[in-house]
Amino acid sequence: MPVEMLANRSVAQLEALRLELMEEYESYRAMGLDLDMSRGKPSARQLDLCQEMLDTVTSRSGTISESGIDCRNYGYLDGLPEVRQLLANMLEVGKDEIIVGGNSSLNMMYDCMTRALLYGVYGSDKPWCKEPEIKFLCPVPGYDRHFAITQHFGIRMINIDMTDEGPNMDQVERYVESDPAVKGIWCVPKYSNPTGITYSDRVVERFAGLTPAARDFRIFWDNAYTVHDLYDEGDHLLDLFSLLKEKGKEDMIFIFGSTSKISFAGAGLAAVAASRKNIAFMRRQLAIQTISYDKITQLMHVRFFQDLDHLKEHMKKHAAILRPKFQMVEEILTRELDGLGIARWTRPRGGYFISFDTLPGCAKRTVALCKEAGVTLTAAGAAFPYGIDPKDTNIRIAPSYPELGELEQAAKLFCLAVKIASVEYLLTTSV
Amino acid sequence: MPVEMLANRSVAQLEALRLELMEEYESYRAMGLDLDMSRGKPSARQLDLCQEMLDTVTSRSGTISESGIDCRNYGYLDGLPEVRQLLANMLEVGKDEIIVGGNSSLNMMYDCMTRALLYGVYGSDKPWCKEPEIKFLCPVPGYDRHFAITQHFGIRMINIDMTDEGPNMDQVERYVESDPAVKGIWCVPKYSNPTGITYSDRVVERFAGLTPAARDFRIFWDNAYTVHDLYDEGDHLLDLFSLLKEKGKEDMIFIFGSTSKISFAGAGLAAVAASRKNIAFMRRQLAIQTISYDKITQLMHVRFFQDLDHLKEHMKKHAAILRPKFQMVEEILTRELDGLGIARWTRPRGGYFISFDTLPGCAKRTVALCKEAGVTLTAAGAAFPYGIDPKDTNIRIAPSYPELGELEQAAKLFCLAVKIASVEYLLTTSV
Repeated sequence: MPVEMLANRSVAQLEALRLELMEEYESYRAMGLDLDMSRGKPSARQLDLCQEMLDTVTSRSGTISESGIDCRNYGYLDGLPEVRQLLANMLEVGKDEIIVGGNSSLNMMYDCMTRALLYGVYGSDKPWCKEPEIKFLCPVPGYDRHFAITQHFGIRMINIDMTDEGPNMDQVERYVESDPAVKGIWCVPKYSNPTGITYSDRVVERFAGLTPAARDFRIFWDNAYTVHDLYDEGDHLLDLFSLLKEKGKEDMIFIFGSTSKISFAGAGLAAVAASRKNIAFMRRQLAIQTISYDKITQLMHVRFFQDLDHLKEHMKKHAAILRPKFQMVEEILTRELDGLGIARWTRPRGGYFISFDTLPGCAKRTVALCKEAGVTLTAAGAAFPYGIDPKDTNIRIAPSYPELGELEQAAKLFCLAVKIASVEYLLTTSV
Repeated sequence: MPVEMLANRSVAQLEALRLELMEEYESYRAMGLDLDMSRGKPSARQLDLCQEMLDTVTSRSGTISESGIDCRNYGYLDGLPEVRQLLANMLEVGKDEIIVGGNSSLNMMYDCMTRALLYGVYGSDKPWCKEPEIKFLCPVPGYDRHFAITQHFGIRMINIDMTDEGPNMDQVERYVESDPAVKGIWCVPKYSNPTGITYSDRVVERFAGLTPAARDFRIFWDNAYTVHDLYDEGDHLLDLFSLLKEKGKEDMIFIFGSTSKISFAGAGLAAVAASRKNIAFMRRQLAIQTISYDKITQLMHVRFFQDLDHLKEHMKKHAAILRPKFQMVEEILTRELDGLGIARWTRPRGGYFISFDTLPGCAKRTVALCKEAGVTLTAAGAAFPYGIDPKDTNIRIAPSYPELGELEQAAKLFCLAVKIASVEYLLTTSV
């Protein structure tokens, strides 16, 4: 059957199709699926890849680091020197431009935000909470947890359109350079959450060229997927930090990263990187907050991964598990939806997500249909500030957690739900 | 030679004594000691007691908890159920009245403070940072890191005198019940840092009887040394949380604890406990801050300690290492200083510190003399808000880290320094 744009069909044809699709949907419902695809969780097979890391800190192997530090005791607020070196290499910064702390880069972002609010960042005239209003730019669709932090603290969020090569920089420049209340922007520059795109050189260069109206403006550069290629040939992200240094603007960026999707999602390492002045400023505040982070976990990581080359080799094992999942979803989406004129989606070469767009007003309905048949997706609208997707079109697909068999069922159900929602929409609008 | 009050000696006698003491001091200086006694760090021998904990989460033993949770992945924001139970038992609260998070109770206190400042606590009309001024009561001498958090955020600190049975409750009641700007009080109720005293039943009962002027007043109850007895017969602390519940005031307290001085100082577990309403309120905010804490470390702890009885047995091994250190310091202090009328000190039955008081104006000089001879003590004044000890008398002694031989030298040097500082003082005041 040749593929035909759904929009070209008659009302009668659409009615018939709807009945047919609903019948198929009922058979899915009858299957009693129970699958949670709401978050970008690694699968157990991926977590197994690091299982031997646990054998590197036993009573036999000990907990004195190779640099002679007793990792059990207090001290070394900014992390073991050797683990700082490893993560500095991963994030392409110097060893004195990084703090390794805790298991959650989200928590480090949250901490950076609370410190900025209550104390200010390096160069602030006053704590951000003393300003009449502050604003953050939010490229959309984006990472829901970034937006949750911003919303929680009553920071006004401004949507910035995402293009195929990153945020719309005309919009970014306009806001950043004209409004001193704009204190920051959230970015996931490589394999962006959820679109999977990597910022182009041109976009990164324009970030380096920003001349903010606020003297304490910060780019929150969440480089969560820097080594998370699905293919041997990964995307290349221009090194913004170096560009900023060339222009003497290196204080303008906070870089975040973690091993959550390298080692253990809930028990990895997180890091914040920034200019020496930012790090010194942050370190003084951090000394008020805690005595030190868990260095046994740090030691475990550095003993297992050794150096960046080994870590990158390790990432190929993740890719070998993840790639078939992305490919399967892509294949099913193409087979089921291509040419119908009711959807478009991204084809990421790394990261954890596929971003999917339905016809206007169909995202919520699609997610609800999946949920009712036992497959939980990320809530529609989640990738937008305040959870409001103005056109109700965007859905984040997270293929990492289910195994292939489940994923196949889920993807087929998803396509069916998209078709049902689309037909319903077309029937409504064609009246 | 019979002991005589130094104050009764003539100027000539004091001058002669000073020369004699300085000669002895020079011989200490020549020894080139290098010892840091500034913090309450456990010794390597204490940390060794838990070394086998590391063998409980290997690739063989696995990381699926006994309750079936994959501890490597995201999830369980408030901690593994079994570890929550363990620490709930330790802190004498219910399993649904606790959050286990991270490795640092200090960080949890800091987080409670930042949340209160930026968002308010359960029952607040507005975030604390929107109040014109807020104040915290600080029993002195107290824990320097509590005061550092308070000072960092510009919260006004009010000194409360410590008595032999806890804070001066007349002062506490007066401030708490009359001034709505007083939002909290810092307490280390058992084996208090640094005095080592445990709040008496009467004091705890008066805490339960408080009727704060601020509806969102909180007692920050840092029960850091709840199972840290030096002797078989430990001090008994009345259960304030239960007393508050009886009066329907259970929202008035945040309880903190950790295993920093039970397992590994830098790689243990921390917890905050509070009423169900407080915990629910906190949990919603915590969900913004992080995805989950490190559950592998949690699993390791619960597999090693099993239950509170085993944990208490384990604490006896710590006591066996710590007790001789406290006894040696006490013995040397008594032998060298008793009857001279120049010092008094506490005789704690648990915890990590001895609090020492010199003649007025002698604490800084004593610490400086020790430092010059290679022994670093906690900075004089550290146990007071803003680092200001009004009479310059208080010194915190932390005997835990050095081994016995070093500790003996350090204690003797300390007594010598106290005598020198005292003689200098008496010579100055007798002019």
